[in-house]
Amino acid sequence: MSKLRVGVIGAGAMGASHARTLATGVPSAEVTRVFDMDTARAKQIADEVGGAPADSPESLIAEVDAFVVASPDFTHADLAVAGVEAGKHVLCEKPLAVTADDARRVVDAEVAAGRRFVQVGFNRRFDPGFVSLKGSITDGSVGRVQVLHGIHRNASNATSTDSSTLVTGSMIHEFDTFRWLLDDEIAGIRVESPVADGFKDPQIATLWMRGGQMITAEVYVNAAYGYDVRVEVVGDAGSATLEPRTPVVRRIAGQGGSSIGSDFVEHFLESYRLELAAWADASLRGEVVGASAWDGFAANLVAASGVRALTEGTRETVAVPERPALYA
Amino acid sequence: MSKLRVGVIGAGAMGASHARTLATGVPSAEVTRVFDMDTARAKQIADEVGGAPADSPESLIAEVDAFVVASPDFTHADLAVAGVEAGKHVLCEKPLAVTADDARRVVDAEVAAGRRFVQVGFNRRFDPGFVSLKGSITDGSVGRVQVLHGIHRNASNATSTDSSTLVTGSMIHEFDTFRWLLDDEIAGIRVESPVADGFKDPQIATLWMRGGQMITAEVYVNAAYGYDVRVEVVGDAGSATLEPRTPVVRRIAGQGGSSIGSDFVEHFLESYRLELAAWADASLRGEVVGASAWDGFAANLVAASGVRALTEGTRETVAVPERPALYA
Amino acid sequence: MSKLRVGVIGAGAMGASHARTLATGVPSAEVTRVFDMDTARAKQIADEVGGAPADSPESLIAEVDAFVVASPDFTHADLAVAGVEAGKHVLCEKPLAVTADDARRVVDAEVAAGRRFVQVGFNRRFDPGFVSLKGSITDGSVGRVQVLHGIHRNASNATSTDSSTLVTGSMIHEFDTFRWLLDDEIAGIRVESPVADGFKDPQIATLWMRGGQMITAEVYVNAAYGYDVRVEVVGDAGSATLEPRTPVVRRIAGQGGSSIGSDFVEHFLESYRLELAAWADASLRGEVVGASAWDGFAANLVAASGVRALTEGTRETVAVPERPALYA
Amino acid sequence: MSKLRVGVIGAGAMGASHARTLATGVPSAEVTRVFDMDTARAKQIADEVGGAPADSPESLIAEVDAFVVASPDFTHADLAVAGVEAGKHVLCEKPLAVTADDARRVVDAEVAAGRRFVQVGFNRRFDPGFVSLKGSITDGSVGRVQVLHGIHRNASNATSTDSSTLVTGSMIHEFDTFRWLLDDEIAGIRVESPVADGFKDPQIATLWMRGGQMITAEVYVNAAYGYDVRVEVVGDAGSATLEPRTPVVRRIAGQGGSSIGSDFVEHFLESYRLELAAWADASLRGEVVGASAWDGFAANLVAASGVRALTEGTRETVAVPERPALYA
Repeated sequence: MSKLRVGVIGAGAMGASHARTLATGVPSAEVTRVFDMDTARAKQIADEVGGAPADSPESLIAEVDAFVVASPDFTHADLAVAGVEAGKHVLCEKPLAVTADDARRVVDAEVAAGRRFVQVGFNRRFDPGFVSLKGSITDGSVGRVQVLHGIHRNASNATSTDSSTLVTGSMIHEFDTFRWLLDDEIAGIRVESPVADGFKDPQIATLWMRGGQMITAEVYVNAAYGYDVRVEVVGDAGSATLEPRTPVVRRIAGQGGSSIGSDFVEHFLESYRLELAAWADASLRGEVVGASAWDGFAANLVAASGVRALTEGTRETVAVPERPALYA
Repeated sequence: MSKLRVGVIGAGAMGASHARTLATGVPSAEVTRVFDMDTARAKQIADEVGGAPADSPESLIAEVDAFVVASPDFTHADLAVAGVEAGKHVLCEKPLAVTADDARRVVDAEVAAGRRFVQVGFNRRFDPGFVSLKGSITDGSVGRVQVLHGIHRNASNATSTDSSTLVTGSMIHEFDTFRWLLDDEIAGIRVESPVADGFKDPQIATLWMRGGQMITAEVYVNAAYGYDVRVEVVGDAGSATLEPRTPVVRRIAGQGGSSIGSDFVEHFLESYRLELAAWADASLRGEVVGASAWDGFAANLVAASGVRALTEGTRETVAVPERPALYA
Repeated sequence: MSKLRVGVIGAGAMGASHARTLATGVPSAEVTRVFDMDTARAKQIADEVGGAPADSPESLIAEVDAFVVASPDFTHADLAVAGVEAGKHVLCEKPLAVTADDARRVVDAEVAAGRRFVQVGFNRRFDPGFVSLKGSITDGSVGRVQVLHGIHRNASNATSTDSSTLVTGSMIHEFDTFRWLLDDEIAGIRVESPVADGFKDPQIATLWMRGGQMITAEVYVNAAYGYDVRVEVVGDAGSATLEPRTPVVRRIAGQGGSSIGSDFVEHFLESYRLELAAWADASLRGEVVGASAWDGFAANLVAASGVRALTEGTRETVAVPERPALYA
Repeated sequence: MSKLRVGVIGAGAMGASHARTLATGVPSAEVTRVFDMDTARAKQIADEVGGAPADSPESLIAEVDAFVVASPDFTHADLAVAGVEAGKHVLCEKPLAVTADDARRVVDAEVAAGRRFVQVGFNRRFDPGFVSLKGSITDGSVGRVQVLHGIHRNASNATSTDSSTLVTGSMIHEFDTFRWLLDDEIAGIRVESPVADGFKDPQIATLWMRGGQMITAEVYVNAAYGYDVRVEVVGDAGSATLEPRTPVVRRIAGQGGSSIGSDFVEHFLESYRLELAAWADASLRGEVVGASAWDGFAANLVAASGVRALTEGTRETVAVPERPALYA
């Protein structure tokens, strides 16, 4: 089998993790190029994974079969478009773009190319727990879904540092999760917070799916105690809850329980490996799996509506345009 | 010790359960009179607990030291007022009244009497699990509370049979729970449902406390799988979740887990006993513990706002008037 | 209903708890007499529960309908025999006697009287969790039982202060539990410890039932972290485990879990109330429920074999004599 | 990085799983040869993973850098010795040999070679849950370890089909687990069963470590309900229990719980990948990690003693000879 020659753009925590995971866990790929604005960092990670640093994103794209975008969010859309135009498969970290308009450009580029190249890094779609949760819907266990509840907490905020980026950077995971779980578009959104002024954290979103389901989602990026992602799906026959627990229970000094980590990369490490492996294998076949550019665009649309809802105190309708046939 | 002579008005499932619990689990009380419109039923329960049937609520009130109101909701307020006027201690099942105006009459009667006689049967305040949950707030474990999430599901609907009584009969438990947990009034409410027409079940309420906290509450009275009440309290230092589990885990045929009952009376039986015992002991001392008439009135006010919010599609402000000094 | 006039002999922690539980949770009984070698203590508890102190166990027995034995273990058998001879119902705390010979005297007294009066305080038989666990056997859920595993840990040792009393005072609960769960006699026992010298704590017992099942039981009375009692029943169709958990889960500072208490009285408080209520009601009917004198004797026999097995390093056969017809 | 050219001997369920895991999850290795007595099967798996079938184990060994032994148990020791003599790294599935004498031959071959080449496939040492459990000991959380309890259940028996192979094929995992967790040798063993005749399943082992700890281990290969491996470590400061749970809790029809799988390969799939990756990386460095030939030999010694103990009804001393300096 020939391997997929992969470039990694952006060698920060996420990019370095992806480069290492590809090198140590995905035999169908090899990391041949790494780019970062910090050239020393790029060289360090490239050395570590057996590749070479690239001079620019452009040269990197020219020298690889496919590439991972883990650079700052504002660069995502342009790099994804560049990948489409170069005919190279792209795994673009979420969000696909900072604005829905920018995300739309990626969709338009694929439609113009008549072919899909971009997978958006909504890794939960590859997490065995989330896959099992979805199975509780698709196998009919919970019956007709009526309500979902999502919890998304970080110990302390990293990238989501103001009221808007909490929606566009963190809560966007929930938007994709709900769309994917229910295989449906989000039709309406409200976002509110118990915090009146300054950084509105936590936030509580209320969402409506086209199919009628209602969803509550709490995102709290300074929840102090640890990283905690849970989803409950409630149907007319039962309920299914994803609530991960480490497998060791300690009973010490009057307390019995398990440790809760604070690092989402570690929490989802196996899902990242499965995501990268699925992406590499699909890229070798000329296919795209996981979240598409359309999914990335739709998530951006919801996020934009969410920011508006939070700012204006309104319930916003999410106006998702007609889906191009390419994403049928 | 002389015993509290107790009458029970209403010998349906709840009233009969209370009569039996008093007879078998509360030594400081004795059930001396039972009234029910169904006189045969009244006699049967009276015989069972060692009391005598009463001819009318009025005669019952005259013949006892204190009484339990477990008759239909529309009779609650008048009976509570009659108790106040007769100077008899009353344990009135929730809700205190069908309307907030009626509940106000009970408050006014107590204010006129210059003394409290009425405890409202919000039994969760005596449930060891709820008491422990409140302890996680008052002992500072979770830090400053930001958000609460409530779940209240029944296997199938009993008394809550339309969109409004779901709020006034079932969700009213959540209203009292949140007020009690946070020792604060509810300031605003929204109630929505994924069900467009007919019986709106499940319903999702969003609530705001005066102190700023936001709350989501799902009530689903036809949840099919069983009776399930959970509350999570989220603060800036941590989270505490009440999630009862039966103590036996069975591993059979590829599934490991615990049974979930469908009967709320059985679920909360010990809390009913603790509630009745606390009521009887306080009545003997001439005191009132647990939820007061004011608490019952406040819950009715929130419920009225909730019904309006559901019907009108609005967010309602809950206008709680000034609290009389009697309830300080 | 006339009440059962109850005397309590021994007003230590257990006796005082029983007196209070009778007074506040068992309407069919009233504590009329309390005896303790410490007469001030007896008066204090008697005052608290509305009874009077007794001058001696003998006078107490003469002045009540029934009595609870919660005095030191070495007094149990004589008091139980005195109860039988006086025709008074007795709830005797475990163990029924210090030696199997002494326990046999109680059995013989009942056989001579032709009637049973004695219930032994193996309270787990009334604990809802244990009752549910037994239900997993009797309803066929786990299939044919093959193996049981018991865990019994205290935070620190109270009454079990040497290698022998750990068996006769603590592990004796397990002996009764296994006999009751499987409705069968214990046929053989081995008791060993990882501790070579001094106080052998923890201890591990291996037991064989007449029906062939094997059992492991760990008893550790200085387990430091808290009070923890668990039992797993393993059959050829599945497994059922009693593993109580407090209903509130806290997530704080990287740990998620529940509190573990250290006080067995508090842990089993509701089971003590159910035990005392069942005893009082049965006594009023002239019946005995729960563990009989025979069960107490059998547990003593097993304990004696267990001490021998521990001391000698042997596997001991438990020679249970033929069961008198009175206990059929 | 040049890759480790790996041969896989034995293409049954375990061997095929290892070949696939290497091909899809271990970039530092490539499966170049596959041997199986069933040549069609060998070709099929070889095709699947991009390698070629080998004519014989001998030719396979000559043509690779390292190899995996997943052929029938009776072939293990000879193949491991052949690997040592050829200077090739070997990952030998457990058990290292059928008899302790045969396992000793592998140790002797390594001692003669003056170098270690063999890793034994005790995969639990690479399982994140087991690693975390061991961390509870090494970080001092549980204090000084006193007792361990192991549970090892299969839904139905596969390779362990008689009383002896249950010990040598299944329980041998526990022997290695306890040695590894406590970093100590097993000094004594007893193995018993509630089943008197025929296939003695379940079996209960009692073990003693040199350091004094006592261990109970239940192995039940026809436990019907699913695959279930648990270990509790009990120290004088607390307890740590490995009890894996799938992350989705379903509440359906009066039952709340999680699914339990029946396939141990699936259960431990990630640990197999981590084991194979660690082996490949270490082999490239000329090192051996994980369980050594000495560990394999020690486990065989304990298993032999265990079979004797089961057959004779004795407590057997495990006479572990002095450890060669090579394994210090």
